[in-house]
Amino acid sequence: MPEVSEQEYSHQRLQQVNDALDSGMFVYVRKLLQDMPAYDLALLLESSPTKSRVALWQLIDADHHGDVLEELNEEVRKGILKNINPAKLAAVAEGMDVDDLAEVFRTLPDSVYQEVLNAMDGQDRSRVEAALSFEEDTAGGIMNTDTISIRPDVTVDVVLRYLRLRGELPEATDSFYVVDRADHFIGAVSLSAIVTAKAETIISSLIDKDIEAINADMNETDVAKLFERYDWFSAPVIDHEGRLLGRITIDDVVDIIREEAEHSMMSMAGLDDEADTFAPVLKSTQRRSIWLGVNLITALMAVAVSSMFEGILNQLAILAVLNSLVPSMGGVAGNQTLTLVIRGMALGHIGESNSRILLYKELAIGFFNGLIWAILIASVVAIWQQNLMLGAIIAFAMLMNMTAAGIAGVTVPLMLKKMNIDPALAGSVILTTVTDVVGIFAFLGTATLMLG
Amino acid sequence: MPEVSEQEYSHQRLQQVNDALDSGMFVYVRKLLQDMPAYDLALLLESSPTKSRVALWQLIDADHHGDVLEELNEEVRKGILKNINPAKLAAVAEGMDVDDLAEVFRTLPDSVYQEVLNAMDGQDRSRVEAALSFEEDTAGGIMNTDTISIRPDVTVDVVLRYLRLRGELPEATDSFYVVDRADHFIGAVSLSAIVTAKAETIISSLIDKDIEAINADMNETDVAKLFERYDWFSAPVIDHEGRLLGRITIDDVVDIIREEAEHSMMSMAGLDDEADTFAPVLKSTQRRSIWLGVNLITALMAVAVSSMFEGILNQLAILAVLNSLVPSMGGVAGNQTLTLVIRGMALGHIGESNSRILLYKELAIGFFNGLIWAILIASVVAIWQQNLMLGAIIAFAMLMNMTAAGIAGVTVPLMLKKMNIDPALAGSVILTTVTDVVGIFAFLGTATLMLG
Repeated sequence: MPEVSEQEYSHQRLQQVNDALDSGMFVYVRKLLQDMPAYDLALLLESSPTKSRVALWQLIDADHHGDVLEELNEEVRKGILKNINPAKLAAVAEGMDVDDLAEVFRTLPDSVYQEVLNAMDGQDRSRVEAALSFEEDTAGGIMNTDTISIRPDVTVDVVLRYLRLRGELPEATDSFYVVDRADHFIGAVSLSAIVTAKAETIISSLIDKDIEAINADMNETDVAKLFERYDWFSAPVIDHEGRLLGRITIDDVVDIIREEAEHSMMSMAGLDDEADTFAPVLKSTQRRSIWLGVNLITALMAVAVSSMFEGILNQLAILAVLNSLVPSMGGVAGNQTLTLVIRGMALGHIGESNSRILLYKELAIGFFNGLIWAILIASVVAIWQQNLMLGAIIAFAMLMNMTAAGIAGVTVPLMLKKMNIDPALAGSVILTTVTDVVGIFAFLGTATLMLG
Repeated sequence: MPEVSEQEYSHQRLQQVNDALDSGMFVYVRKLLQDMPAYDLALLLESSPTKSRVALWQLIDADHHGDVLEELNEEVRKGILKNINPAKLAAVAEGMDVDDLAEVFRTLPDSVYQEVLNAMDGQDRSRVEAALSFEEDTAGGIMNTDTISIRPDVTVDVVLRYLRLRGELPEATDSFYVVDRADHFIGAVSLSAIVTAKAETIISSLIDKDIEAINADMNETDVAKLFERYDWFSAPVIDHEGRLLGRITIDDVVDIIREEAEHSMMSMAGLDDEADTFAPVLKSTQRRSIWLGVNLITALMAVAVSSMFEGILNQLAILAVLNSLVPSMGGVAGNQTLTLVIRGMALGHIGESNSRILLYKELAIGFFNGLIWAILIASVVAIWQQNLMLGAIIAFAMLMNMTAAGIAGVTVPLMLKKMNIDPALAGSVILTTVTDVVGIFAFLGTATLMLG
């Protein structure tokens, strides 16, 4: 049997489902979908054109709807939620975890929101309201409330007997939380400590000092950092008075890490990281046009700078031919520095204490790279055009612009961060403006002085 | 007390350590470092200039060296490994997990490798050799061998008694693996199933059907997908005969996910995702110059195309001024499509079955966006230059180039992937070449026809 990668396998199945859907074999599609895990069903919906999504959704077993909603990309989820009637959604919501429920409710259109809430029973409604009482990107917003709490003064034997009585544990339970009578968090005891301890051991002696409680209003980025720092699999969440509210498990943290890493890459191209790959044409056109508009301003600034030198351009068409070279190389060099800095800031490498060292380093790299390419290009141009002066002019402009690119690549993202503007989103536009303007000024300006 | 974010807190500490280091207060630095977890020590080394790293390393408690090596970025680790003597490294290696050991050995310079191996005792040497027998990016390469295996025919009571005798479990144990006498993997039983089952329950009846074994040669990307699909916390790894070799835990998977997401972003700027933020200037200059060289070829192609139109540029300097506009907008639009497609391929959204739909969609978006900006720019230029024909020419070129950008943004990464070339690395250069060449041809070519 030839080895097939996970991804190819997924796509063969996707093809199978789509073919069956196109030929109207709905019973067969329903059967195919029945055996797929929620993650794959979500992937299938995300990989399908918008118009097939509602049809597919209706063929998915209703018992899986909750799990699939949870896995879906936000934008795709919104599209599907628009097409479900409130009563059905209320039924779906019953089986969902609190954290996922809150996420779904946050993406619900306002008009439907109240209707769904009304269709739910009292207990579910209060679950939703509790979950929505925390900000979206905080520990409280991503936690689950299915914790098992125990008293500090009981023995291991009592706990084991309780667990046997209780039956199944909540998913991904690797520890229990020790609380006092008022539900104040005292510490965590790992499941593995309980199974390896003697029956008569008192729980309080098994508390794992390495597990700290997280405040419900801690930002999710910080939560992810703590998980990575301490290699946690789960962590308790408490309120301001230290009362246990719930727990966060590492699978939620995986989502945060993926989203953050994706966010930088997508933002740098002016895209939303929740963007639907198969979003409708008009919607995408509209969204992308904003970014293109911002870039047009940059491009027009370059044009404006060039137009200041129309005199020399009129005299020497070769300057017009070469005019794009210096800004282009500066843009690429600056973008390298910018990307490195944005990643460094995300990983926590860069702060007040070392930004100066970084600036000197990137300035030096810009200067040396400028020197290399200045000499190379000057030689090419001097030989091609039989014009030593032209070579010298372009070399000088290149050196100036590459050095400016190094400086801007470090200072632009640092300044944006201080101003609370996302450097991944705004950084590259500002950087390109700098390298375009400096590049054209240095090239055409020097040319005007020397050749004009 | 004002709230301080995790990141600010890290940097305050970093500043503290660096200040103390600069003032030669080594005893104090050693004390500061003693209380820091390995993750923070690694972050501290990564955030420090290369010259301070060796000094810091020597002040870190030797017991933590193994854990810190494991957490370090590959390039930073290499720099430190160069400065440790082989006997010391052999001592560090003793306490390390097999997967981390293999990773460290893979980054060891060849000259030191054999020396370190010789300095190790027989048992450790064979651990290293076993770990190195698997490819780096496979399940075998990232697994650990600290599994607990049990027989299918024993009772829960027997297992619990065995665990109590054994004492502490390996880190992050959430399940045990059921194997036959020849070590063939039969299934996994979760720790939570064991604590909730009756004492006399036979282990084979508790096997969790949702946990599948992973083949040791499965690619790590596929491993990560499986973990995400099934929300696993750990999974068993087997050889071709189905024998249990070890297990992979979700913390290893978190690293894979972070690396992959970072890889796309860094590659698009021509950077290595293992790049050291504070790498020495000359090393960085050399590395970046490769990418700048590749981009120079692109830029020179644009120059070559422009030079074909020197005649018309000589007649009308305004064409030279406007020449950068169309390629610039096309580049931005194409880059948006490219980024969306690269992310879609990484998430598994895009395959044979839906690439055509995506192409039509992006072509349409390119066309509509082209139309919007064509009309806008044509109006600006026509009014500014009092020249309707010039407006029409730039509008036509803009429409052409934006449509080409949409097509190239989809087809370039798909073709590169078929050729087994990383689209994140090569995509943007090829795309920019397309949008530069098409943009200049369309603008200056049409201008030559209409105005020449």
